[in-house]
Amino acid sequence: MQSRCHTIHAHHEHLTWCRDHAPVMTVAPGDTLEYGEMDAVCGQLSRHSTAEDIANLDFARVNPIVGPVYVDGAEPGDALKITLLGFNPSGWGWTGIIPGFGLLADDFPDPGLHIWTYDRSLGTPTAFSSIAKIPVRPFCGIVGVEQAAAGEFSTVPPYATGGNLDTRDLTVGVELYLPVQVPGALFSLGDPHCAQGDGEVCGTAIESPMGATVKLDLVKGENLRFPRFVTHEPVTRHIDSRGYEATMGIGPDLMEASRNAVRGMIDRLTRLHKMSAADAYMLCSVAGDLRISEIVDMPNVVVSFYMPRQIFE
Amino acid sequence: MQSRCHTIHAHHEHLTWCRDHAPVMTVAPGDTLEYGEMDAVCGQLSRHSTAEDIANLDFARVNPIVGPVYVDGAEPGDALKITLLGFNPSGWGWTGIIPGFGLLADDFPDPGLHIWTYDRSLGTPTAFSSIAKIPVRPFCGIVGVEQAAAGEFSTVPPYATGGNLDTRDLTVGVELYLPVQVPGALFSLGDPHCAQGDGEVCGTAIESPMGATVKLDLVKGENLRFPRFVTHEPVTRHIDSRGYEATMGIGPDLMEASRNAVRGMIDRLTRLHKMSAADAYMLCSVAGDLRISEIVDMPNVVVSFYMPRQIFE
Repeated sequence: MQSRCHTIHAHHEHLTWCRDHAPVMTVAPGDTLEYGEMDAVCGQLSRHSTAEDIANLDFARVNPIVGPVYVDGAEPGDALKITLLGFNPSGWGWTGIIPGFGLLADDFPDPGLHIWTYDRSLGTPTAFSSIAKIPVRPFCGIVGVEQAAAGEFSTVPPYATGGNLDTRDLTVGVELYLPVQVPGALFSLGDPHCAQGDGEVCGTAIESPMGATVKLDLVKGENLRFPRFVTHEPVTRHIDSRGYEATMGIGPDLMEASRNAVRGMIDRLTRLHKMSAADAYMLCSVAGDLRISEIVDMPNVVVSFYMPRQIFE
Repeated sequence: MQSRCHTIHAHHEHLTWCRDHAPVMTVAPGDTLEYGEMDAVCGQLSRHSTAEDIANLDFARVNPIVGPVYVDGAEPGDALKITLLGFNPSGWGWTGIIPGFGLLADDFPDPGLHIWTYDRSLGTPTAFSSIAKIPVRPFCGIVGVEQAAAGEFSTVPPYATGGNLDTRDLTVGVELYLPVQVPGALFSLGDPHCAQGDGEVCGTAIESPMGATVKLDLVKGENLRFPRFVTHEPVTRHIDSRGYEATMGIGPDLMEASRNAVRGMIDRLTRLHKMSAADAYMLCSVAGDLRISEIVDMPNVVVSFYMPRQIFE
């Protein structure tokens, strides 16, 4: 049987995960899905939005998921293989500091917003005023399937079945494998981003409306407990040419060590580049990486925040 | 005044941090220190050791620090800048699973040991039987200064003043800045490694006796809270040419998510490369990276373990 290409419009969206949502369509393993333009906040922000619009953001209408798609033959215990084939970016995006949200929510009580415009062909980095240039590398924050558990689940957290993974390397060419928990897998996509660092520390990436094309396949009986993925290319060569500034957080708690690593970088960037702390926090989120340098020398761990130097040149 | 080069022999070693240790020598900012061969376990293991020797390891004699060196003019509030100039590797090393130690101590109760030999010129990767080839990239696990607090402190954990940072990127050409808390800084070095991934998940790297050369400088009044460092080169190009296998851990706790990410990779490697779980765990520790993919989508975080595909080719 020949594989087919299906189109899915973004109006097939839900604001919860629920195994009882009626499938939009049924596809066969090997089929391709072409998603129309998706948006992480149901169109609540535009190129003309201000920080006030962030303050008024309706959190009940964030992270919509588009689907679900029933995959013929998928059964609990299988893995759904998603190959990320391409993205159709809109050319604009936003990064926000949302009060009460983000790794340093207590340090940044006020709303913040930066609007980005970028080259849709992705050939040139997008500028953050005259301070930094961020390479554009689109991916979907949300890639997931439905859970076996009954009920409705928020689309904000990720789960063992995927969902809001917000993992910057789920980009073109990458294969993601999700644990299937219900018949048909019930696949959904959402939350397009055009750049993000590991951690998404301020709580938002460069959130950017865009379409996406993915191919779905089945691996029978893989019995995954959590998602896994395979990249066929290096993941940092677009941004690492000049090495890194890195700051550390050290102590008994990984979360607090992470906070201190990011605080250290915000302090460093404000000194080096004469920017506000809020701007530094947003730049950290879209371009810097949280790494666990050491997790075994009890009682203290080391978390390092790596900021690529290339973006400032 | 001309900067000088000083030699420090490894017999100037201590098994605790203590601000009251008498300095080995006093140096000026700008001076270079050439350390003789250091060893992470005070010579308790050799090229001929077995897993039984790991079981009998005396944990009171691990992670010796060599020093301290008094840096003229260093005062609390300053930063000690350490430029890592070079390493003099011995050509052999070991990776061990030490019962009760390591991220998955509960999963791996039995001792394990792998002995490595490698090209001292670092030109070729070191082989793990016929399964994998690990690029060699020496660094010191321990780089630190004394704390202001009185008393003796174990050399196993890292502190805000550095110490057992076990951070794989503190390699040749990198500049590390440590917060000075006592007059003279009281600098020590130790725990040489010739390869490690982010996290050092099994608790040991490729532990390898070696010498090291560092340059010390002062930055007055930087008032660092934690260490920071600067790399002038990319940090993964020696190992990332074929991309990564990655496994995820997802849940409300960063530590448990980290454990699950590593468990997923051990499972994946045993399937892909027909190796034992213990071998996979040691390979993860010397070559794979723990990264925090997402830390803001409460209540669940995503930790990913990245294993470079290149080492298996």
